[in-house]
Amino acid sequence: MNLPDVQNRHDERGIKIDWVGVEGYKIPFSVQTKDGKVQSTVGSVTIMTGLSEKIKGANMSRYSSVIETALEKGLLSTELLSDMLVACRDQLESESSYIIISFDYFIKKKAPHTGKVSHFVVPCNFCGVLENGVSRLYLECDISYTSLCPCSREMSEVSAHNQRSNAIVRVKLKERYTDTFWIEDLVEIVERCGSCAIYNLLKRPDEKYVTDAMYEKAAFVEDVVRDIALNLDRENLVDGYRIKVIHHESIHQHCAVAKIKKNL
Amino acid sequence: MNLPDVQNRHDERGIKIDWVGVEGYKIPFSVQTKDGKVQSTVGSVTIMTGLSEKIKGANMSRYSSVIETALEKGLLSTELLSDMLVACRDQLESESSYIIISFDYFIKKKAPHTGKVSHFVVPCNFCGVLENGVSRLYLECDISYTSLCPCSREMSEVSAHNQRSNAIVRVKLKERYTDTFWIEDLVEIVERCGSCAIYNLLKRPDEKYVTDAMYEKAAFVEDVVRDIALNLDRENLVDGYRIKVIHHESIHQHCAVAKIKKNL
Amino acid sequence: MNLPDVQNRHDERGIKIDWVGVEGYKIPFSVQTKDGKVQSTVGSVTIMTGLSEKIKGANMSRYSSVIETALEKGLLSTELLSDMLVACRDQLESESSYIIISFDYFIKKKAPHTGKVSHFVVPCNFCGVLENGVSRLYLECDISYTSLCPCSREMSEVSAHNQRSNAIVRVKLKERYTDTFWIEDLVEIVERCGSCAIYNLLKRPDEKYVTDAMYEKAAFVEDVVRDIALNLDRENLVDGYRIKVIHHESIHQHCAVAKIKKNL
Amino acid sequence: MNLPDVQNRHDERGIKIDWVGVEGYKIPFSVQTKDGKVQSTVGSVTIMTGLSEKIKGANMSRYSSVIETALEKGLLSTELLSDMLVACRDQLESESSYIIISFDYFIKKKAPHTGKVSHFVVPCNFCGVLENGVSRLYLECDISYTSLCPCSREMSEVSAHNQRSNAIVRVKLKERYTDTFWIEDLVEIVERCGSCAIYNLLKRPDEKYVTDAMYEKAAFVEDVVRDIALNLDRENLVDGYRIKVIHHESIHQHCAVAKIKKNL
Repeated sequence: MNLPDVQNRHDERGIKIDWVGVEGYKIPFSVQTKDGKVQSTVGSVTIMTGLSEKIKGANMSRYSSVIETALEKGLLSTELLSDMLVACRDQLESESSYIIISFDYFIKKKAPHTGKVSHFVVPCNFCGVLENGVSRLYLECDISYTSLCPCSREMSEVSAHNQRSNAIVRVKLKERYTDTFWIEDLVEIVERCGSCAIYNLLKRPDEKYVTDAMYEKAAFVEDVVRDIALNLDRENLVDGYRIKVIHHESIHQHCAVAKIKKNL
Repeated sequence: MNLPDVQNRHDERGIKIDWVGVEGYKIPFSVQTKDGKVQSTVGSVTIMTGLSEKIKGANMSRYSSVIETALEKGLLSTELLSDMLVACRDQLESESSYIIISFDYFIKKKAPHTGKVSHFVVPCNFCGVLENGVSRLYLECDISYTSLCPCSREMSEVSAHNQRSNAIVRVKLKERYTDTFWIEDLVEIVERCGSCAIYNLLKRPDEKYVTDAMYEKAAFVEDVVRDIALNLDRENLVDGYRIKVIHHESIHQHCAVAKIKKNL
Repeated sequence: MNLPDVQNRHDERGIKIDWVGVEGYKIPFSVQTKDGKVQSTVGSVTIMTGLSEKIKGANMSRYSSVIETALEKGLLSTELLSDMLVACRDQLESESSYIIISFDYFIKKKAPHTGKVSHFVVPCNFCGVLENGVSRLYLECDISYTSLCPCSREMSEVSAHNQRSNAIVRVKLKERYTDTFWIEDLVEIVERCGSCAIYNLLKRPDEKYVTDAMYEKAAFVEDVVRDIALNLDRENLVDGYRIKVIHHESIHQHCAVAKIKKNL
Repeated sequence: MNLPDVQNRHDERGIKIDWVGVEGYKIPFSVQTKDGKVQSTVGSVTIMTGLSEKIKGANMSRYSSVIETALEKGLLSTELLSDMLVACRDQLESESSYIIISFDYFIKKKAPHTGKVSHFVVPCNFCGVLENGVSRLYLECDISYTSLCPCSREMSEVSAHNQRSNAIVRVKLKERYTDTFWIEDLVEIVERCGSCAIYNLLKRPDEKYVTDAMYEKAAFVEDVVRDIALNLDRENLVDGYRIKVIHHESIHQHCAVAKIKKNL
């Protein structure tokens, strides 16, 4: 068949497009974990390139092709994402590319008293931007913990309101580092800063432990966001960050939120 | 124009369709409140009819027309919903019709100590089914409250885990009643059954009040669902119900849930 | 530690709870595919039991334990789900149990002309209910296809409106059958009934093929729901079904929907 | 009561917080429309302030108070949002404030042939930032239209794939202008740039009109994003913009997307 190729035609409007591509491409793949194992998961991919003012449209099927080829080939890692950025830029004949891979990552955690093991889910975005020949990579994780309100604690003789909480932390990964900054590292940092870590299987002694522990370490959104910032400042592998802390207030219908951004 | 009318053609497959229509029709409208005022809100409408095995398709534009005409005309009420069911059935030349109007309803609540007023949102579904000449109407509300865990409370000397919680309660409204069962009535019942009502504006004495009150009335999902059932059993205007109670556990990533259904 | 066991206490209200348990338990697991391979995916689990009127509460940590133990043990299958229902009922000391496992399933499809392979995602719910010693299993899949409007096609000389469409089909699986009804089988049925199957990697000759094919087979929501029903009526392994067909109309903001239920 | 005021205490960590406040505050309010009428709707408010490194926490109840007071007082407008930014900054004793009000806005549109009137929903974000004594205001609208693929059109003799599409357009409103840039103006621009406007009530002659019109004006995401940019460049009241165009491809499960940002 000799089919017209409308996308390749010249465009007269003279407007460069920052990013064009596809969103919501679902695909299964595997990722390496800190303990050297392989974890299988499901991703949703956004993949884009810049488009010159001279060309009418991008060749949309090539975005699918880049995704399918790369994630069949190997484990998701900083190397694989860097390779995907280059493949995307080159196959789309562009000068820039941009990829987000969103997926659920699981950590097996031991309950604090009985040691019972359960899965803990960490929704992640692994992102990369390639511009002017330079790639920047970002890891973003949404990490759950529990928070207990310091104000409620001081006012009440008996208890304090507490709630499920999330820290959405994006870090810019330092280049040219042989060492890796892992999802597990980010989870550990956030769990140090909240009132207590949470677990999906707690026997009664574990539940008592978590109840008591969170009362010992009351924390506002402001406390948690500051403590995460302090911790990230000490990380060699992190070049910049954006932190959003969300407390799903048990006494309100809305959430309390705090945000800090640095070098991003 | 003399355009073909494909939908009205005869269908050969001999299969009756239970329900056909449209979903997600967004429209603003007004609703009467218990205190005699009028509240404006935004709705999303589902509207369906049964389709005879003899006809190829429903006349889709008439669903839109029924929605637009009815909600322009007056305040949403049991009468208006009943009228819409009849209009829908008749204009679509069907024998049955089915409508759900989903909307956010607001109640102004006073903080328990200072009396400061704030809005409390209640997501609602107002539903009706008209079959064999008889209409049944249902009111479903998603009502937030706070719950404090009785087990955690007994195990810990200092506190107890607590969390934002929801009761999604659907009631079948009794027919031929001159009296009305209001959204406000359902909210009052649920707030009696949870550990404490919640509010969107609390000064410090109010926050102390809520913290102390919920500690006094610890409740599992099982307690709340049973207490709501007991309360609804005593309601003259309610013919049947379905209750789903959800506690967004502050110490887990998943939710605790309990459900009771009666005469529905 | 000798901790109080509040849940095991006697309840005085005399109200049986239909279902109590947990919702939204995220966990990775594997599932067998029709071609004999193993596919890894991520699930969200709902797990419930009935609760006697004599007992205050369910032992919540056991739900987590049943999920973790079962999905570590083996591939998700009708056998594994049946075993989970029994384990759940027994470990919670109940008489009934109820499980839904929601997950994304992937099928590799070949583009219709070039044969290029890409992943096609099928959101699934695999459900079971165990009551009075009898288990019933259900498979529900949300299957995407494209639909082209027959009315628009007949009125216009040049084209017809078409749109992304979904059929959410739940089938009750026949008991005591050695043969298996697969997700792949349900996808094949739905793709036969829509205007054309859709693919995530289409080169230009493939895109021409899909454009032409859907024009040849215009279908209303009413046509698609009826054709799926006819196909399921012929399936030996299916005992009952519920079909919901949704066309995301390209010319409206709302969706056209049709539903048929039989023996469910 | 003499209650401790934990939030007002001195903080030792020396870390300024960019933004702290509340998210997801639901409230009904009214807004002025271009034709001089008043429209009632429901909003979800995000409201934040910067927090000095010297203070432990923000006074959370004051955010609620600012929202309740402002939206009871009057119609949402550029003036009201500007006033809210100042009230928020001052009552929280901060130097900066940040507000997003998300709401559904409705426009009554006439079907292109019969003139039948129906509601068209436009999800909007009205945003403001107040820093260093200067306010910047932004209007963001998510506007639906239909798009028909130019490539599919040229390859096929009979038809072309088309789909529901959205343009999410954020504009920075020019300061010190007596004139107003309306939601209606943004909708008109986007509808000029897509393949055809869409409507929620179309009789058959209207449906033929839309089917034919979109075939006449095939447009890729790249075409639509460029045309919107060209149109916004000509708007006196717009100082900068960010455009995201999304086509919900009828032949794929993922979306095609294009983005242009200028002076924002």
